[in-house]
Amino acid sequence: MKNRFTLLLPILALTFFMNTSNLTAQKDASVEIMQANEKFMNLFNAGDIDEFVSVYTEDARLLPPNGQIVTGKENLKNFWNGMMEAGIKPVLKTVSAHRYGKTVIEEGNVAIHAGDQVVDNVKYIVIWKKINGDWKMYQDIWNSNNPLPN
Amino acid sequence: MKNRFTLLLPILALTFFMNTSNLTAQKDASVEIMQANEKFMNLFNAGDIDEFVSVYTEDARLLPPNGQIVTGKENLKNFWNGMMEAGIKPVLKTVSAHRYGKTVIEEGNVAIHAGDQVVDNVKYIVIWKKINGDWKMYQDIWNSNNPLPN
Repeated sequence: MKNRFTLLLPILALTFFMNTSNLTAQKDASVEIMQANEKFMNLFNAGDIDEFVSVYTEDARLLPPNGQIVTGKENLKNFWNGMMEAGIKPVLKTVSAHRYGKTVIEEGNVAIHAGDQVVDNVKYIVIWKKINGDWKMYQDIWNSNNPLPN
Repeated sequence: MKNRFTLLLPILALTFFMNTSNLTAQKDASVEIMQANEKFMNLFNAGDIDEFVSVYTEDARLLPPNGQIVTGKENLKNFWNGMMEAGIKPVLKTVSAHRYGKTVIEEGNVAIHAGDQVVDNVKYIVIWKKINGDWKMYQDIWNSNNPLPN
């Protein structure tokens, strides 16, 4: 028995160490999150609000500037439908995306186009969750880089 | 040898499974983050800007509304010094704080007091990092619940 555990211990220790490292170490998720953002932009520009809100989790929390928190699919639809009807086109760019298991913390920015003009520049943090193999937005907060209008 | 590995395999599998669960499962960190926020408020109200900015990591990224990203200790000091001199008093409240190893994702809100009045209500997401045993803010983004001023 003693010999068996002598053999076992370093392997268990190594396994434990490797998994502890995994637990605390973040992994880069830029590529998969950039793909998810590509989907976000394509669905937004396609203008089908029902398809579009599928980029969010069922329990998603939208934290828009100068407004209350938006939760629930219908409220998300109403919020984004207003943006679609305003005719804007968001161009998202990931600054960093760090993965912890089934969660990703992304920082990025958005150039908001209206016709030929960029009408706003926005920075954001999005918390993504992997749900049934797809990355979906769970928490979404942003604000403008532009000064307050006078 | 065959017997030894027969004994080994289920133990390794169990260790692996346990660590995989840890990796994906989030842990509640509300209590420790509320304590860190208590420190944030106390240092802010004490008004010593050098002490106060120690609540941030060295590489912290402040994402304020209607402004550019703020990085670097001196820029953080300038930003918060302006807020301190404005005589406001932030009252922070944690909504959720989920821990992934040495990282916490917190959502919360702030009632910004000036004298007897609440002059703004703000919601935020803060990404905390555990540095040498202390929780410090790495990414800090917020925006107002109040409508844009006319």
